[in-house]
Amino acid sequence: MAAQRRIDLVLDSVRRLLRIGATANLLNLLQKQHPADLAQVFGELTDRDREAAFSVLVERHGRLAMEAVSELGPEAGAALLSTRSAEDIAKLVQEIPSDDAAALIDYLPDELSTAVLDLMRPRESGVVENLLEYDEKTAGRIMNPTVFALSEDLTVGEAITELQNHRDIEMVFYLYVVDERRHLVGVTSLRRLLLVSPETPLKRIMVADLISARVDMDQEEVARQVAAYNLLAIPVVDEENKLVGIITVDDVIDVIKDEATEDIYRLAGVSGDERAFTPPMESLHKRLPWLGVNLVTAFLAAGVVALFEGTIDALPVLAIFMPIVAGMGGNAGTQTLTVVVRGIALGELTWGNARKALFKEIVVGVGNGVFLGVAAALVVWATRGNPTLGIILGLAMIVNLFVAAAAGTLIPLGLRAANVDPALASSVFITTMTDVFGFFSFLGLASLFSRYLAAPI
Amino acid sequence: MAAQRRIDLVLDSVRRLLRIGATANLLNLLQKQHPADLAQVFGELTDRDREAAFSVLVERHGRLAMEAVSELGPEAGAALLSTRSAEDIAKLVQEIPSDDAAALIDYLPDELSTAVLDLMRPRESGVVENLLEYDEKTAGRIMNPTVFALSEDLTVGEAITELQNHRDIEMVFYLYVVDERRHLVGVTSLRRLLLVSPETPLKRIMVADLISARVDMDQEEVARQVAAYNLLAIPVVDEENKLVGIITVDDVIDVIKDEATEDIYRLAGVSGDERAFTPPMESLHKRLPWLGVNLVTAFLAAGVVALFEGTIDALPVLAIFMPIVAGMGGNAGTQTLTVVVRGIALGELTWGNARKALFKEIVVGVGNGVFLGVAAALVVWATRGNPTLGIILGLAMIVNLFVAAAAGTLIPLGLRAANVDPALASSVFITTMTDVFGFFSFLGLASLFSRYLAAPI
Repeated sequence: MAAQRRIDLVLDSVRRLLRIGATANLLNLLQKQHPADLAQVFGELTDRDREAAFSVLVERHGRLAMEAVSELGPEAGAALLSTRSAEDIAKLVQEIPSDDAAALIDYLPDELSTAVLDLMRPRESGVVENLLEYDEKTAGRIMNPTVFALSEDLTVGEAITELQNHRDIEMVFYLYVVDERRHLVGVTSLRRLLLVSPETPLKRIMVADLISARVDMDQEEVARQVAAYNLLAIPVVDEENKLVGIITVDDVIDVIKDEATEDIYRLAGVSGDERAFTPPMESLHKRLPWLGVNLVTAFLAAGVVALFEGTIDALPVLAIFMPIVAGMGGNAGTQTLTVVVRGIALGELTWGNARKALFKEIVVGVGNGVFLGVAAALVVWATRGNPTLGIILGLAMIVNLFVAAAAGTLIPLGLRAANVDPALASSVFITTMTDVFGFFSFLGLASLFSRYLAAPI
Repeated sequence: MAAQRRIDLVLDSVRRLLRIGATANLLNLLQKQHPADLAQVFGELTDRDREAAFSVLVERHGRLAMEAVSELGPEAGAALLSTRSAEDIAKLVQEIPSDDAAALIDYLPDELSTAVLDLMRPRESGVVENLLEYDEKTAGRIMNPTVFALSEDLTVGEAITELQNHRDIEMVFYLYVVDERRHLVGVTSLRRLLLVSPETPLKRIMVADLISARVDMDQEEVARQVAAYNLLAIPVVDEENKLVGIITVDDVIDVIKDEATEDIYRLAGVSGDERAFTPPMESLHKRLPWLGVNLVTAFLAAGVVALFEGTIDALPVLAIFMPIVAGMGGNAGTQTLTVVVRGIALGELTWGNARKALFKEIVVGVGNGVFLGVAAALVVWATRGNPTLGIILGLAMIVNLFVAAAAGTLIPLGLRAANVDPALASSVFITTMTDVFGFFSFLGLASLFSRYLAAPI
């Protein structure tokens, strides 16, 4: 990709200029970059190079440096800032919008963040502290509290003058209209202002029926609304419908990415806030509990095998093929689970149409079971010369793929109905089911028909 | 959620009105809904109800009905349309933007789509056919070819008049500027037009250095650019830099969701275009190959167990604990794999910082291995009274979690370096590795120390 190649070139130059200590050239190169590109360059540098490059840039171009830090994301951004003094940080975070500042400050070590808030200008730190009071992952936490609004009593001409007097506002494609107590009463657009005569009252051209988000709305629901209605921004109101902020579509894109990451992670038993470079001890701590639960369920499945220790003693060949049944069930169950969990997340799958999904998954599961069971049976017959063992393996596989399909559909839907995130615990439930039923069906059938198995092996 | 509750209410009414055949009331209810809400309502109805409700709406409000069909997504939307005549469809698709029309027509059965294209107005069908000529998942395929542009020779006043004369254009927050042969030369905004005097030449206020996408750019790269630079739309140009279309951020959100779904699916061995309600036979067909590959690898792992058939014959208890080693390796490997694959997808992880990631994952893997290995060893000692068996199980687990960490990091990075989607094949590689090494390390250690194991069991 051209963009990636350009960034690689910048990256090479940055490394070279840092090595030879050519600070002036480095500054000249960095200041010409877009904040998003800078963030990517910073992301690929070593910790030491990143700090050196950031230090060079921040002294002369504080705003650009801080915009790049924002783009890095709050965790990595706060890490980069945290080596600086509280005074420095307090000054620097005022260069960026308060929602970005709040996110960064939230990730600083506790002592440092308190010191920074104390040192900021009272008005600014007040805004940031207000944002930090909203619950995590709500509209209030991710909104930008600086939102431009027009009074409903203006004419179109006055509104345009108002806009011309506020050259620094960020976002003006939607113009929100408020009454004298700042209740949100309507929305219009810059474009609509241009299509009517200047004397027209704003009230006449505004749309009163508009979509807004309450400060306490879950960020995932905010993202769903923005995506469903193809909005570029959504106004945020408090419980009295007063306009308190705005969430723009670029923040919504970040939410959608984070929520997708969380879904992917949860299916694999990884905590939603882990990243590729989360410190090892923290990752270990986050992953161990889930593996611990898996260990317990693994012993549960081992207990099922232990029930048939006598059968295995008589027919050790069973130990060879038994993991195949469990493993194939796990794989098929994971496929079903993934489609169902994603279907729930995308809003396509609900209790209302669950029966149709269950029917589909069972058809697919049993169908795959028949194909794979026959294939496995033939392989065992060919390699071991024992058709009965093959048939037992095939039958056990069909049974287990049926179990996988049913469990893979019903468990996430059940968790959802109980208001638990279906991705959270499903995976461990499914593989436990497919291990237990896999071992039980294969070893159980083998016990039942052991007299047909013993002879030819 | 309030929004969901409102939709549930609409859904109940729709079902009731359909049951009692109150068509006029039904029409009245449907026409008041937002297309996105209608799509959700349609999605939750049974096939028959959906067709009935759609038929009622489409006769009187063709555009609204088609907007709802677009929101349903091309696959489900095409399914809903496909029961109608080609004449009907040809007329209806002209109610929606050409990119949405192209996506729908692409999903119709071949014969029907040809008939529809033949019946459309020549100009319209030409536009749609042009779009369908671009490769799937490229900028050209998802762009809207109707893009408004201003000539670089205009003044600001003339540009505003131009805008006032084109009241029907969709998207005007970025105003693209082109030369006389429609080469893209700059961008400005409605807002900037308002801040200068009408006589100012457009050239003076436009930004010449703008980000655009080539028609053949991969849609994922388009999405990355729009997200990285916080754009609301990106202009699409051909190989000569002529402006040919526009991709707006709402389409980018759809791409981001689809790509996330694809990543989630691929990790589980599900094809990217499967949905919760893909017909069973199609799903079976899509999932079987991956399960087939898994069956082959399962036999490979079974082959490793077969190497130790004699050891198991002497010590059948090994069959009980052997799946635990393999299973825990698979779980830990999946955790590593997921974090690494997502890190690559989000652009955080590259070859450049791969060593750091590998080091981290190995620390986490061995750390978890020690905790879980000791726990498992104690359980075996307590339940079987055999400390040696416990130690062997624990050691095998540490070895296998090390393998899981190394494979889970290196395999996706290697696939990425070879330009293969890391999510595509990683999962089957990892579980094969952890099965093979799990069985080998546990049964191998047990063979080596079998004389210490035999006695006390």
